[in-house]
Amino acid sequence: MSELLGVAVLGAGHMGADHVRRIGETVGGARVVAVADPDAARAEAAVAGREGVSVHREAQDALRAPGVDAVLVASPEAAHEEALLAAIARGLPVLCEKPLTPDSAAALRVVEAEARLGRRLIQVGFMRRYDTEYAALKTLLDSGDLGRPLLLHCRHRNVSSPPHFTSSMLISSSVSHEIDAARWLLGQEITAVTVVRPTPSADAPRGLLDPQLVLFETSGGAVVDVEVFVNCGFGYEVRCEAVCERGSAQVGDAHTMVVRSPGRAHEDVAQDYLVRFADAYDREVRAWAAAARVGRVTGPSAWDGYAAAAVAEAGVAALDTGARVGVEMAERPALYDC
Amino acid sequence: MSELLGVAVLGAGHMGADHVRRIGETVGGARVVAVADPDAARAEAAVAGREGVSVHREAQDALRAPGVDAVLVASPEAAHEEALLAAIARGLPVLCEKPLTPDSAAALRVVEAEARLGRRLIQVGFMRRYDTEYAALKTLLDSGDLGRPLLLHCRHRNVSSPPHFTSSMLISSSVSHEIDAARWLLGQEITAVTVVRPTPSADAPRGLLDPQLVLFETSGGAVVDVEVFVNCGFGYEVRCEAVCERGSAQVGDAHTMVVRSPGRAHEDVAQDYLVRFADAYDREVRAWAAAARVGRVTGPSAWDGYAAAAVAEAGVAALDTGARVGVEMAERPALYDC
Amino acid sequence: MSELLGVAVLGAGHMGADHVRRIGETVGGARVVAVADPDAARAEAAVAGREGVSVHREAQDALRAPGVDAVLVASPEAAHEEALLAAIARGLPVLCEKPLTPDSAAALRVVEAEARLGRRLIQVGFMRRYDTEYAALKTLLDSGDLGRPLLLHCRHRNVSSPPHFTSSMLISSSVSHEIDAARWLLGQEITAVTVVRPTPSADAPRGLLDPQLVLFETSGGAVVDVEVFVNCGFGYEVRCEAVCERGSAQVGDAHTMVVRSPGRAHEDVAQDYLVRFADAYDREVRAWAAAARVGRVTGPSAWDGYAAAAVAEAGVAALDTGARVGVEMAERPALYDC
Amino acid sequence: MSELLGVAVLGAGHMGADHVRRIGETVGGARVVAVADPDAARAEAAVAGREGVSVHREAQDALRAPGVDAVLVASPEAAHEEALLAAIARGLPVLCEKPLTPDSAAALRVVEAEARLGRRLIQVGFMRRYDTEYAALKTLLDSGDLGRPLLLHCRHRNVSSPPHFTSSMLISSSVSHEIDAARWLLGQEITAVTVVRPTPSADAPRGLLDPQLVLFETSGGAVVDVEVFVNCGFGYEVRCEAVCERGSAQVGDAHTMVVRSPGRAHEDVAQDYLVRFADAYDREVRAWAAAARVGRVTGPSAWDGYAAAAVAEAGVAALDTGARVGVEMAERPALYDC
Repeated sequence: MSELLGVAVLGAGHMGADHVRRIGETVGGARVVAVADPDAARAEAAVAGREGVSVHREAQDALRAPGVDAVLVASPEAAHEEALLAAIARGLPVLCEKPLTPDSAAALRVVEAEARLGRRLIQVGFMRRYDTEYAALKTLLDSGDLGRPLLLHCRHRNVSSPPHFTSSMLISSSVSHEIDAARWLLGQEITAVTVVRPTPSADAPRGLLDPQLVLFETSGGAVVDVEVFVNCGFGYEVRCEAVCERGSAQVGDAHTMVVRSPGRAHEDVAQDYLVRFADAYDREVRAWAAAARVGRVTGPSAWDGYAAAAVAEAGVAALDTGARVGVEMAERPALYDC
Repeated sequence: MSELLGVAVLGAGHMGADHVRRIGETVGGARVVAVADPDAARAEAAVAGREGVSVHREAQDALRAPGVDAVLVASPEAAHEEALLAAIARGLPVLCEKPLTPDSAAALRVVEAEARLGRRLIQVGFMRRYDTEYAALKTLLDSGDLGRPLLLHCRHRNVSSPPHFTSSMLISSSVSHEIDAARWLLGQEITAVTVVRPTPSADAPRGLLDPQLVLFETSGGAVVDVEVFVNCGFGYEVRCEAVCERGSAQVGDAHTMVVRSPGRAHEDVAQDYLVRFADAYDREVRAWAAAARVGRVTGPSAWDGYAAAAVAEAGVAALDTGARVGVEMAERPALYDC
Repeated sequence: MSELLGVAVLGAGHMGADHVRRIGETVGGARVVAVADPDAARAEAAVAGREGVSVHREAQDALRAPGVDAVLVASPEAAHEEALLAAIARGLPVLCEKPLTPDSAAALRVVEAEARLGRRLIQVGFMRRYDTEYAALKTLLDSGDLGRPLLLHCRHRNVSSPPHFTSSMLISSSVSHEIDAARWLLGQEITAVTVVRPTPSADAPRGLLDPQLVLFETSGGAVVDVEVFVNCGFGYEVRCEAVCERGSAQVGDAHTMVVRSPGRAHEDVAQDYLVRFADAYDREVRAWAAAARVGRVTGPSAWDGYAAAAVAEAGVAALDTGARVGVEMAERPALYDC
Repeated sequence: MSELLGVAVLGAGHMGADHVRRIGETVGGARVVAVADPDAARAEAAVAGREGVSVHREAQDALRAPGVDAVLVASPEAAHEEALLAAIARGLPVLCEKPLTPDSAAALRVVEAEARLGRRLIQVGFMRRYDTEYAALKTLLDSGDLGRPLLLHCRHRNVSSPPHFTSSMLISSSVSHEIDAARWLLGQEITAVTVVRPTPSADAPRGLLDPQLVLFETSGGAVVDVEVFVNCGFGYEVRCEAVCERGSAQVGDAHTMVVRSPGRAHEDVAQDYLVRFADAYDREVRAWAAAARVGRVTGPSAWDGYAAAAVAEAGVAALDTGARVGVEMAERPALYDC
């Protein structure tokens, strides 16, 4: 490897362009060497002002570009499986934006390909694990100081949903972050899902079942409730309280500047996940690049991506049927044991 | 009526004695004139240092004591029905500690007796309605500024449960406060209950299903989740967040003095409901006495006591069966319409 | 004494009327039996709906009214000295709204009259000592857990100043609360005052030096800074941080209901001292009445009223001269030793 | 310039080593190419595991090393002037840790050298300007929404002071951050200083006047008070409240994870400035490197370094004399006008 890790970024949309900027500004020891997007103008715009970056329409071409040591996948989810399998074939470490694939069947194919290779190359972009507050919560839970976790209360709110967002996407797209966070924080698998839903908000698009209350049961006997509300109107909010046998810990209410004006003391509420989790994204890509430079992959694995997909599918079934739905998962390959 | 409202307090246990002290110290225009408790020594202790209070073993004797204008029922719940019917027979306004009666059948008999009388004499001691924060939340929700309430997230935690507390009492005794608060805040009836429960805390008494997550559905399409955890170990905590169509409002995280000591900034957490809700109890008894002096009864009604019992019974069934249980209620007499 | 403490309330203005209501509603074991105000209509309005209260134009007549056991002085400060001396002459316990008298010379005369009598009859209305948060801070400082107090940072803000408020009244009227709070919290006398003042706010009335930064040095080597800002526009705020050798403690940022609406999380800020300190006033009068019923006077003494006046006079001199001004005080009579 | 900005880091102590790590990990488009420290082992340790970095005993040698495009000065302050003048002579952009120089006379010589050159090469390491909260406060003040700032209340606390810390260093070393922050936030010069000091904490080293209360008056009629307490024992705390004509804004109380354990709700308090301001340091160096790559220098100027030194010297005189001391400053060269 040359002095700097050469990264190919697949996808130059909102996330991809942000990652190009991120690697250029806040990641030491790495640089973007190739960008691929079917929309060439968008790819050119993403790399404007950066030298030495080749631009491609095809992901496969970007992977083969000179100087590519690693791949960041930020393309539409339908394109992930092919890109991931190609990266595995070339032995390139990958950071893949979530979801790993559109469904659990595809995710399992990726898991099996990586398991056949016998070493980890794929990290999934569950960036909450890199958020300072979530990391502090994980450290505290792992310390055992508060005893066993019994309940996680989670809130996941967006100002408004993008066009074409469907009721099942509240689970498969939004709640997938809580699925990973719960599995990671607890160190347990999710075994069943129930979805309870109030009469939808009048401010949600017609037909969208928003908000929802999603309940997970876990292999260790914990219960997780998630309010997901993607048209809450007031801000982007992600909160989590872990209730344990001997105490509780709560993150996501971080406050900063308090302003007093007539009759009120107020704080601003973040409007966007790229603002709320800006530092987490920075840390995630930094950690991935640092590991990749020494030939390792850490962080959320392809198995985590698969598990999230399997739980989300059970969740969508629970939403559709109104009943409690058990989660079916394949056996976990030994590669993901640690 | 003489210059001061003469109150008979039935029961001189923890709550009864506290009410005797409360009326003596923080309630204007009222005084305790009679106390009844089968344990005469306990009754004498409760009125020590107060002049002009007669002490009785029998509740009925206290009701007949000279100068009694109103009754505060703080005896064991098994004794409530008889006391309430006697007070109705004598036309005395009553403040009755919750629960109104041990079960919904008895509560319905009280409701029917009051309905036959044709005017309200009974107020039930759901004192949260008199808590400053809950009152502010109610005012905000009623204003409509935040739109329709969609979800209530409630937490109800005690340091430890008293001896002989059973799994069903988490619902019938503890959550009964949330049942009333939800009905009152939303202005809706509860129509179904589901109980989800994690593996109990190792710090809970053997066999006690603690904590529990209780879900209510309401006639207006809202969903209420209640964490009840009566052996949480760290404090007495009651919190509620109302998530509405255009914003949310949260109470119960009130903080006061912040102390910084090595490595930490901390606040004390209340350990006891008589501390947390001291002001609410004061306001409740004051409001009741002020209304009684002018011949009125306001506040939570016998119907509210009945409804709480009916929902709690459905909740216990949901706990036992693991299934969603619909709430069955009698028709509401017109007396309780407003 | 009859069953209830009979209170004469002198002055039926804003504070006096509020005290009449308070004694009627939230103070057990006491009732108002006489009210005096030169404006008879105002006095009548204050007691409307209350039985058995005689109304007087002259304070002296109210003191002589039948059933008067104690006096609450809420008349203009110019009338205090005469009322206090009359109450001392009749041996009646007094709760006197602050300031004790218009100046330290008059206050000293009251102190001397009480010292001649040889027992305490007068309590001054420094109600912050009865505020839950200030009381918790006092308890913590007295415990010694944080070591010796080194600094007190105080904020005292009003939405706007009443008409005719002068620059020196920021000290003599507003900061007098902090003078007492600092003396009480620290258990030390104030020995010197310096006033630093920014260019006045454009929103302050023309000519009013508002805000001011007032510095106190104390006999125990602590330093107290007070921001007083009586036209801050946004709310009534009283905050205090005590910085000690081994930690700090802060009160006055109490928060209650948090509301999230588009882009903001906010809390209401109290607009008025009768709201912020409502409970403190209740506790103050309750404690005074309970002590008076058993022939005692506790709480802030006439000496505390004198000391506040002496420090305030030094403060006004410091404001006028721009220099540090030492505080001159008479010797403290033994009556006030404990 | 090559693809990456080549940085020479002078000084491999605590700060220098941290900057080497920072540039390697969190700064895009830059790399460390040379490190100088008289203690060669320390310099080697700082660059362990990084390729292509030359190590030098002499700062001058590092400046002349191949590939050096810019200089980060983290050597002892006595060495700053020589290094800064050498960098100016070579036309290299500099980020110089504070203080710019040990005294204002030396700072003025640097200012004059840069003014003679006619373009800015020097940025001083007042990293608070890059802290998210301070930046938000600056934006708010500049918006004018709250009117003119009247008062700044600042707190600057350290767990404990390093060995050999002197009473005057509380001002010249610690408060120098508040001097710059106040000048920057207000856009005004400081015109006078007063220092008031309580009896020192028993936990401060013998002879150290700790804490101190430092007062600044400004050219725009604002007043700034700074509590500096370098042996507070409990944490590293930097707080600032700006009180304006139509509201106030407060930063530095940011909270994150709240943990409830028996009787308490607590948050951790940062113990170290490299923790509290980690992100600010990252942003500072990133912004400096990005500007240097395009031949510009932004951020706090040599003039800001000079002004801080001049004010600090007045502050030390105020501490020594107990009197208010005016600040004397040279005329500002036009280079620093914008």
